[in-house]
Amino acid sequence: MMESEPVWIDVGTAEGKLSMKGRTLLHAGPPIDWKRASGPLRGAIIGASLYEGWAETPREAERMTERGEIGLDCTHNHNAVGPMAGVISPSMPLYELMDEKHGTRTYSNMNEGIGKVLRYGAYGEDVIERLKWMGSVLAPVLKATIEEARKESGRGISLKPMIAQALTMGDEAHNRNNATTSLLIRQVVPFMLKSGLDRKMLFEAAKFMNENNFTALNLGMAAAKAMSLAAHDVPHSTLVTVMSRNGTDAGIWVSSLGNRWYTAPAPVPRGLWFPGFSEADANPDIGDSAITETAGFGGFAMATAPAIVAWVGGSVQSAIEVTNRMYEITYAKHKYFQIPFLNFQGTPTGIDIRKILKTGILPAINTGIAHKKAGVGQIGAGTVSFPMEVFRASLKGYVDKYGV
Amino acid sequence: MMESEPVWIDVGTAEGKLSMKGRTLLHAGPPIDWKRASGPLRGAIIGASLYEGWAETPREAERMTERGEIGLDCTHNHNAVGPMAGVISPSMPLYELMDEKHGTRTYSNMNEGIGKVLRYGAYGEDVIERLKWMGSVLAPVLKATIEEARKESGRGISLKPMIAQALTMGDEAHNRNNATTSLLIRQVVPFMLKSGLDRKMLFEAAKFMNENNFTALNLGMAAAKAMSLAAHDVPHSTLVTVMSRNGTDAGIWVSSLGNRWYTAPAPVPRGLWFPGFSEADANPDIGDSAITETAGFGGFAMATAPAIVAWVGGSVQSAIEVTNRMYEITYAKHKYFQIPFLNFQGTPTGIDIRKILKTGILPAINTGIAHKKAGVGQIGAGTVSFPMEVFRASLKGYVDKYGV
Repeated sequence: MMESEPVWIDVGTAEGKLSMKGRTLLHAGPPIDWKRASGPLRGAIIGASLYEGWAETPREAERMTERGEIGLDCTHNHNAVGPMAGVISPSMPLYELMDEKHGTRTYSNMNEGIGKVLRYGAYGEDVIERLKWMGSVLAPVLKATIEEARKESGRGISLKPMIAQALTMGDEAHNRNNATTSLLIRQVVPFMLKSGLDRKMLFEAAKFMNENNFTALNLGMAAAKAMSLAAHDVPHSTLVTVMSRNGTDAGIWVSSLGNRWYTAPAPVPRGLWFPGFSEADANPDIGDSAITETAGFGGFAMATAPAIVAWVGGSVQSAIEVTNRMYEITYAKHKYFQIPFLNFQGTPTGIDIRKILKTGILPAINTGIAHKKAGVGQIGAGTVSFPMEVFRASLKGYVDKYGV
Repeated sequence: MMESEPVWIDVGTAEGKLSMKGRTLLHAGPPIDWKRASGPLRGAIIGASLYEGWAETPREAERMTERGEIGLDCTHNHNAVGPMAGVISPSMPLYELMDEKHGTRTYSNMNEGIGKVLRYGAYGEDVIERLKWMGSVLAPVLKATIEEARKESGRGISLKPMIAQALTMGDEAHNRNNATTSLLIRQVVPFMLKSGLDRKMLFEAAKFMNENNFTALNLGMAAAKAMSLAAHDVPHSTLVTVMSRNGTDAGIWVSSLGNRWYTAPAPVPRGLWFPGFSEADANPDIGDSAITETAGFGGFAMATAPAIVAWVGGSVQSAIEVTNRMYEITYAKHKYFQIPFLNFQGTPTGIDIRKILKTGILPAINTGIAHKKAGVGQIGAGTVSFPMEVFRASLKGYVDKYGV
């Protein structure tokens, strides 16, 4: 996990890069159908169907999905990750990463910003318009950029050093990506300029990336997916290699137990609310972004990011306590991700289901919060614990498999 | 000081923006002549004379300066600041800042990177070549960029929010500018793209800025100069408004005592050395960059920048202790510059000579270290205290003036 070397190497569409067939949408978290899907996931499904032109109205998209004319599949089945609803449709642009150490490829969609965006279940005209612009302007710019970068260095943009650096710059690289996004932009700009693309496109793309501090989140998630994938399928290993939520269920994979999901109802996060909203409006936890905590950063590295408490709530002291508590349930201190304020100690890395069950301490996750109704969008950000039931169930699975 | 609003508004040459006449060079710190000038200042004078074409050889530049054919003047006499030797020659490009709150203008030169550079006293062909490229490529790009930014926002690039943000991102914005530089680049890139300039020029400028984490230092210094200038010339005030060193002497201005320098021999910094160098090679402290500490960041904000100890030496704990100690000799906690790890407490701001004399605590400064011989360049980075004698002498000046 720690030796993984994820490098951003390409941009393509989901249908080009993944084995997606026909009218299929990927979504974050464990498998789910329309009937059990939460509001924000439904909203994102509607939006993606409108974006693809499969449906002309939200009602039509709903009916098509209900009848199975639009299929649903998990992002993690494709080594892909998406924040919040995590919906990826065939023509959406993806980042492609290659783990240079292990040869695996991982994927994520591109970040739309905050507020009324597809991943939080909004599907208004502005949302669809933005997605189309991302496909026609942002994606070609980023594709040309990464091609120029590869020409220069022969290997694309390496993400582990960028995340490691950002962790010394007040990011935990899940809900605070100010530094990661800044480092990404400054690193890619010379290559954007080298590309032969139209200046107006470049300007629009640079402006969009600059105005969104979450620009780098999706790349960081794909990097975390590569890292946790490196620890997956290790016989006898009790490390968690996927933690994800679909807005209804929270689920995990455990390294030695293959792609079998262990699930439980997703809890509602606690946090800070955008004006006019409260906990009563909040959807249960949703998104693949807990892959960052799975790989040893995000909520596990809160001690690197004291300023995050202004976004997710809590005090500086509580942020440090969260990190200190996570050492109790992890396998190692990260070799490359360090916390300057804890004397450059490595972040707590590699969640061990045995340690969770022994200590009763649950993984702490930083997260965005979606409105529970389809069509609204983001209403806050906060923290949440993963439910104990999934770890208990997975240990049962382990005992069944290994007979110990 | 805290309400100052420095905004980068223009780029021009020193002869265009400052009242520099004939063959004059500005330098950091209190007044000095060739005879007493240290190696790195001499080296920078030689380099600037070669750059201007006033001399064809180092020996000729030396002789001209010795005979007074090349005049020397202090940067601070022109509301300008320059790191290390701080040498500014008439055709060198400058940043121009406007303090929107107080209407003053301040200036700084542009950062060349680290190692063999003019400001550390190097004057080889590569150094002169780089300076010429900065005048012919970097400066026009930045001028076009800031003009585009002003067209869009009507006011240029505001520096106080950028520094405040960087202080939550592990910078103290004197010797660690990784975040400040990243934030600067991401903010200006869209405007670079909007300018009608040649793409190759833009590429070269963006690459140069990106490869140097000190790119933003000089803008931060000019901002700090604007801030401390706002506190200058206040009757009865015992606040320090300039702290600077020329490599031989360290000197200060005190608010109510006008532009009168109080000086003492500059101490040699302690720190970490580039391979092959040691304290025996180090020149005494040099540069205007202590203007950052004067304005309440830099060494005074070390607690925001634990990762800096890898560059200037010391431990994380000692960095926090330095900041805590500086509260003892300052007037206020900064309203806008906060330290997340100290529960968002404001940085110690406004050095009071009375408190220094009462406590015996000296201002702590982060600094680069120059080789004592002309022509070598940077050999390390570290920390240094300002000498007690200057504060004692200034209090004597205060007593003489006010009869208390």
